[in-house]
Amino acid sequence: MKPLSPRNLYLALIHYPVKNKQGDTIAAAITSIDLHDIARAARTYGIAGFYVVTPLLDQQALASKITAHWQDGVGSVYNPHRGKALDLIRIKTSLPEAVAEIAEITGSSVKLVATSAAEGKGRLDFSGFRQLLGQKEWNYILALGTAWGFTGPFMDEVDYVLAPIDGGTGYNHLSVRSAAAIILDRLFGR
Amino acid sequence: MKPLSPRNLYLALIHYPVKNKQGDTIAAAITSIDLHDIARAARTYGIAGFYVVTPLLDQQALASKITAHWQDGVGSVYNPHRGKALDLIRIKTSLPEAVAEIAEITGSSVKLVATSAAEGKGRLDFSGFRQLLGQKEWNYILALGTAWGFTGPFMDEVDYVLAPIDGGTGYNHLSVRSAAAIILDRLFGR
Repeated sequence: MKPLSPRNLYLALIHYPVKNKQGDTIAAAITSIDLHDIARAARTYGIAGFYVVTPLLDQQALASKITAHWQDGVGSVYNPHRGKALDLIRIKTSLPEAVAEIAEITGSSVKLVATSAAEGKGRLDFSGFRQLLGQKEWNYILALGTAWGFTGPFMDEVDYVLAPIDGGTGYNHLSVRSAAAIILDRLFGR
Repeated sequence: MKPLSPRNLYLALIHYPVKNKQGDTIAAAITSIDLHDIARAARTYGIAGFYVVTPLLDQQALASKITAHWQDGVGSVYNPHRGKALDLIRIKTSLPEAVAEIAEITGSSVKLVATSAAEGKGRLDFSGFRQLLGQKEWNYILALGTAWGFTGPFMDEVDYVLAPIDGGTGYNHLSVRSAAAIILDRLFGR
């Protein structure tokens, strides 16, 4: 993957390991609109790449079919802007594969920043994250969870957890698409 | 409609009059995920109400069916948070109906602020909009366009047009869902 921007931030939409409503670890299904909306936001803010992570082969095939439709298929004629966003997508079986690819291309290491709708100790706030990005010392993957969010073991493995988006009401049930857009705007919006 | 928050901002997702790709005036179809995502963002930031505007009766019925599923149907048991967001939705045939309802409930007048992905003369910037809201002199409707955006005659009728979201790349093709989330965060996010 050729870096498409000078940004040292990558997105990863993680479909495994995440929780279902009961808290069990599952592999969530790909949601087409997640790919579209997050890719469009990523392109808007000049993000270097957008990893779609799922270990399920049929789901990988589905994600490929969605991107191909807009990159080379009928969709590319109907709306070429869409393909330009979906070009950012790289489908991977696991997050370590994305980490390895970024490290190989850029020659520098990768830190993982998970998102969560919940408050917690030691959360990285947005100005802190902007500072880290500005230091240009590392690459960062912002990991976005699907379904009911990341499992405990996944959260234990990341380098940082980003502070939740606080709208001042106590209601914290944004879609992952909306959360991704807001986070990118807070990091890079003018 | 009882105001659900102290905010003097309302959202309106407009399905007519908007443009299709060729620039013709059309009534766009309701997109279920628009209702969900924008309602969830509106609830997160304490917005007073979210108007879904379409003159098509079958589309009004579809919007009602979507909200009812999560308010009183199977969805309300599966995920009660969703209903709390969709409670903000009011389905109207036209924007003037929404304006009239807000004026009647609050006893004060309503200004219209349209959104656009395009630059243009005299755009209202975000700090200017925050100031207007803070003056508490009027109620404001933030009008979000579907399909290829608002028609010229519609734009000529509004009081303000909000500055487009600039991600610094020249790519300005966010989904209306993402744009709504970013705008609310810029106006009210902490």
